[in-house]
Amino acid sequence: MTEQPTLLQEIRQSLSQGQHDLVRRSLHDEHPADLGTLLGDAEPAEAHALFDLLDLPTQAQVASYLSPARQIQLVTYLDRPRLARLVTEMNADERADLYQNLPDPARAELLPALAQAEREDLRKLASYSEGTVGAVMTSEYATLPEDITAREAVERLRAQALSKETIYIAYVLDAQRRLLGTVTLAGLVIAPSFVKVEDLMHREPVTVHAGQPQAEAARLIADYDLLAVPVLDDIDTMVGIVTHDDAMDVAEAEATEDFHKGAMVSGPLGSLKDAKLVTLYHKRVPWLVLLVFGNLLSGFGIAYFEDTIAAYVVLVFFMPLLVGSAGNAGSQASTLMVRALATGDVYAKDWAWMLGREFAVAGALGLTMGLAVSGIGWFRGGPEIAAVVAMTMLVVVMTGSLIGMSLPFLLNRLGMDPATASAPLVTTIADVVGVLIYFGIATRILDLPPG
Amino acid sequence: MTEQPTLLQEIRQSLSQGQHDLVRRSLHDEHPADLGTLLGDAEPAEAHALFDLLDLPTQAQVASYLSPARQIQLVTYLDRPRLARLVTEMNADERADLYQNLPDPARAELLPALAQAEREDLRKLASYSEGTVGAVMTSEYATLPEDITAREAVERLRAQALSKETIYIAYVLDAQRRLLGTVTLAGLVIAPSFVKVEDLMHREPVTVHAGQPQAEAARLIADYDLLAVPVLDDIDTMVGIVTHDDAMDVAEAEATEDFHKGAMVSGPLGSLKDAKLVTLYHKRVPWLVLLVFGNLLSGFGIAYFEDTIAAYVVLVFFMPLLVGSAGNAGSQASTLMVRALATGDVYAKDWAWMLGREFAVAGALGLTMGLAVSGIGWFRGGPEIAAVVAMTMLVVVMTGSLIGMSLPFLLNRLGMDPATASAPLVTTIADVVGVLIYFGIATRILDLPPG
Repeated sequence: MTEQPTLLQEIRQSLSQGQHDLVRRSLHDEHPADLGTLLGDAEPAEAHALFDLLDLPTQAQVASYLSPARQIQLVTYLDRPRLARLVTEMNADERADLYQNLPDPARAELLPALAQAEREDLRKLASYSEGTVGAVMTSEYATLPEDITAREAVERLRAQALSKETIYIAYVLDAQRRLLGTVTLAGLVIAPSFVKVEDLMHREPVTVHAGQPQAEAARLIADYDLLAVPVLDDIDTMVGIVTHDDAMDVAEAEATEDFHKGAMVSGPLGSLKDAKLVTLYHKRVPWLVLLVFGNLLSGFGIAYFEDTIAAYVVLVFFMPLLVGSAGNAGSQASTLMVRALATGDVYAKDWAWMLGREFAVAGALGLTMGLAVSGIGWFRGGPEIAAVVAMTMLVVVMTGSLIGMSLPFLLNRLGMDPATASAPLVTTIADVVGVLIYFGIATRILDLPPG
Repeated sequence: MTEQPTLLQEIRQSLSQGQHDLVRRSLHDEHPADLGTLLGDAEPAEAHALFDLLDLPTQAQVASYLSPARQIQLVTYLDRPRLARLVTEMNADERADLYQNLPDPARAELLPALAQAEREDLRKLASYSEGTVGAVMTSEYATLPEDITAREAVERLRAQALSKETIYIAYVLDAQRRLLGTVTLAGLVIAPSFVKVEDLMHREPVTVHAGQPQAEAARLIADYDLLAVPVLDDIDTMVGIVTHDDAMDVAEAEATEDFHKGAMVSGPLGSLKDAKLVTLYHKRVPWLVLLVFGNLLSGFGIAYFEDTIAAYVVLVFFMPLLVGSAGNAGSQASTLMVRALATGDVYAKDWAWMLGREFAVAGALGLTMGLAVSGIGWFRGGPEIAAVVAMTMLVVVMTGSLIGMSLPFLLNRLGMDPATASAPLVTTIADVVGVLIYFGIATRILDLPPG
């Protein structure tokens, strides 16, 4: 990835010297994915010039590797017939994505320029809302009837190959487009040529519905090691497939979204590099402001124990250490649990069992930490302070961990995404609870009047 | 996934009534992945009984869907000849993984029971260290010479099909097993039957080396939408392939590891559900203890400004709010950056540019937050406290964000994993810096003697 700037620089030099043919030929050897990166790194005008040097099939492939912003930049340069040719050349799912991203006037211009079949396919694919299986599937899948032989099936797949996303898996449909089974090209090639498709096909394949979340399709492909998963509509008619490469992109995007939720960034952000500054601001500010109220509670907790603090000022010294540790242990517990729930390692029903485990681990962590800080407590404040600090550490680490570990389950039960249980949220809650526990224990042990 | 307990319960009942044949038949219809989940949920003795009901090819497939712990539990029940048959039936990469997980005596017993070719293959695959491409690749890939026709090539692939992980992509090798190019089965099926492989093959395919990190193979497969990526050794001989399904598992494991690093859990943990409690303790305690020292610094910061605090006790009320916000903004910035670096959205060279962007966004966030808290400051402490609180908020949110955003780049430069810049680490650093900035500004504005 580090050599791309050099290639871009070389191309810049060649272009400035008018060596367009040289550039055209050097671009021809590059993989479309690399051309996508190259065009992504180039200045807008440069990207446009380079895009023009590519032939139509390459343009269509490269377009699918571009960020939506750069895609729109490039295609809005094109006149209507050229845009229509490019869009027709693209894969059905990529075409629908591009169409979704086009500004309204460009959409209105594009539709009449397309052939009827493409126009309808585009409208159908574009009708699924973002984040659903329908929005990521392609309608270009290979189909077979059940009553032909393996040899005939291979011939039919051969004829379909160029217009389909994959022919390695073919879907056996009845007259109502209901899915009877799947056959693989390998299975057809290996089988004796006279065997019927219906005797070769795998019945009851794994399927997904168009309205389900994309993550579900990605999970099925990952769990069952599939090349593609067939997509059905509400009346169980087959409407598309999600392929393994798109599933991998979906899984990456889902993980990124969970990371961003862990950073209290609300809603999908896409590329951090391409995001507008004002978007970043709007996605970061709500949680920051919301947590201010949580922190205010900590402030009120401290204010309530002002007399305790006035009597033993040394207690303030230990405050960051104790409430910080509660937050840290809680963040660990919540992050582990959020990820385990997201990957299907742990289910909602496992809560009680996981709570028991967390209790044991957090107890051991709390004891270790309590012992570690009791010495510092003794050194700075004598035996009573040491007892307060050690006991507080044990209790806050356990409380923080149990809160952090349970919060994702609670959010899940409330129908919210467990990933909302981000480290900053858990830290803020642990802060409030930690302050109350700390000064509560201090008031008891040091025999002070509360508040 | 929620119906599995029911299936397991049904099976339990049938088994208790001695209906072994019924259970055997009902298991036969299940996907190996589902059987893996079923055996994972069952009690050890139950899992053993169910495993015994499966035929050998199904056992081999199911084994690859089990957690390492359950895998070892099941196979150590088997006598040597049965274990050897099972291992022989498994895919080369799954076989090597199982072998890696076996206790030493079982390994020593197994090796002599295997055929020579499998023994050598196993030793070779098991020799790659964990986390490398070599440790996840399989040696069962389809190969072709360059001088045969498409028709002959399809025949050869047909003959190889059963013993290879995939025949959808075949590798054209010379006599020294150097990779000349790749052809797809679709390409061979579509092409006129007399065309030579050398005229069909894609030269200069994307490759990866066996010693590189697994994440690199997963990234190539995701970026170039590959079915598999060929693996070369140090002298560029082809030694294996990594397939798309394994790449998806690797990508998920890598994302999980990054999540766990974000929770300050050191090193790969695997399944949270299966992890031993003592392992969880050992993986969580180091960072918790380490951050105690960070928090001690905050304590010393507070102790240093004890006179300021004594003069204006109201300042303590705002402390959690101000240092908390610094930590929250910093966590946002670091998490966004860690993920962007991990997915290749942002590179190390982009630091300066991203810093400028972060400066603008953090400035806007700081202004918003400063304005929001100035009212609370006025209400609880008058205009001077309002000025201190507002100015501190602006400065600490910006400082926290810039630290959080830069830390992943710094760690990367130091050769460490950027994911180490976890929310708790950033929060702890922001705490220390926040305390110093807060009381520093307070001392200036309230015209107090420092320290």
